[in-house]
Amino acid sequence: MSASAPRIEFWYEFASTYSYLAAMRIEALATAAGVAVEWKPFLLGPIFHAQGWDNSPFNLYPVKGRYMVRDMERLAADRGLEFALPKPFPQNSLMAARVALVGAEEGWIAPFTRAVYTAEFADGAQIADKAVLAAILERLQLDAKRILARIDEPEIKDRLKRQTAQAQERGIFGAPSFVVGPELFWGDDRLEQALAFAKR
Amino acid sequence: MSASAPRIEFWYEFASTYSYLAAMRIEALATAAGVAVEWKPFLLGPIFHAQGWDNSPFNLYPVKGRYMVRDMERLAADRGLEFALPKPFPQNSLMAARVALVGAEEGWIAPFTRAVYTAEFADGAQIADKAVLAAILERLQLDAKRILARIDEPEIKDRLKRQTAQAQERGIFGAPSFVVGPELFWGDDRLEQALAFAKR
Repeated sequence: MSASAPRIEFWYEFASTYSYLAAMRIEALATAAGVAVEWKPFLLGPIFHAQGWDNSPFNLYPVKGRYMVRDMERLAADRGLEFALPKPFPQNSLMAARVALVGAEEGWIAPFTRAVYTAEFADGAQIADKAVLAAILERLQLDAKRILARIDEPEIKDRLKRQTAQAQERGIFGAPSFVVGPELFWGDDRLEQALAFAKR
Repeated sequence: MSASAPRIEFWYEFASTYSYLAAMRIEALATAAGVAVEWKPFLLGPIFHAQGWDNSPFNLYPVKGRYMVRDMERLAADRGLEFALPKPFPQNSLMAARVALVGAEEGWIAPFTRAVYTAEFADGAQIADKAVLAAILERLQLDAKRILARIDEPEIKDRLKRQTAQAQERGIFGAPSFVVGPELFWGDDRLEQALAFAKR
C-alpha cells in the first residue's frame, strides 16, 4: 500500500477479549478497503487505574463478566473462531506487548499478534509465560532468544510506556479502539465504521 | 403476527442514548424478520445502584461520556436521526416509563416510546415534565388527562418496580438489552444478532 493510502490506528491490549476478535479480522477488512493498519499494542491497566479500577471491569462487575463470556462465545462461533476465557483472567500482557513493539519495528507484529491471541483465547496458553512467547516466535521462524533479550532493554520498556501514554492522550479508555485522524472508535463493533471513515 | 411467531423482548430505559437508537429501528427490523417485539421499559437507576454507581457511567467516567456523544452523533447521522445530549443528562425517566406501561396495556407503547425518544434526543424537550408527556399523548390522539392520572396509581408504580426487578433477574445490566429465550444481548449493536437468534 502506498504511503498516501488511508490509514487506521488499531489500539489493542493483549489481555482483552474483544481485541482478539478485532485482531483476527482487521487485516482482511482493511486490505479489502484499501486502508493501511498501524498496529498499536498498549496496556489498559494504567488507563483503568486512572478511572479508579484496579482490575478488569469484567471482574469488578461479575454480571457484566458473565455476559461478556457468552457474547464472546456467540461472536466467536459466528466467525469460526475458538474462544474460552483464560485462567487467570485477565492474563498479564506486559511481556507480549513489549515483544509486539519489537515486531512493529521489524515488520512481524501482525502475525505475532494473531498468534498470541490464538494461544491465549483458543489454546488456553499462558501468555505471561516466556516459554509460550518463545514458542510463538519460533513458529514464526524468528530468533526468539534475541527478541526476548530485547524486551528487557529500557528502550523497549519506555516505548511501551510512551505508547500507553499516547493512547490516553487520544482519549482511549478501552480496547480495542480505532483512531482515524481525530475520530476515535471503541470496540470491535466499530471496525467497519472506522474503516469507512478512513476511506472518506 | 401469530401468537406462535418468534419473539424478542426489547428492554429499554428512556434516559438511555443507545436505547433511542434501538427504539427507532427495532419495529422495522423485527417486522422484516417476522419477529414479534415485546416492549419492556425499565429503570436503570436501581440496577446501576446495585453495581455501586449513583449516576450514569457516562457522567462517572467523563472520557467515556465524551466518547459516547461523538459515537451517538456518528451513528445518528448514519441513520438519518437527530441527536443532541439532553440537559440535564440523564433525564429523569420515571414518569415516561410509567406512562409506557399504560401504553403496553392499551396497545400504543411503540409509537409513544419513539415519540418520547424523539422529544428527548432530537427536540431537546424535558421528558420529566408532565406537560411534555401530555403533549406527546395528545399528538397520538390519546386522552392525556386520563392516562397521566393512571400513573399515580399504586398498580402502575408497582408494575414498573416489578418490571425493573425482572430485568435484574434476567441479568440485564445496561440498556438497550434484548432477550430471546435464555439469551441476553446488550446494546443496539446486537439487535441484528438477537433477531437472528429469535428466528432459529
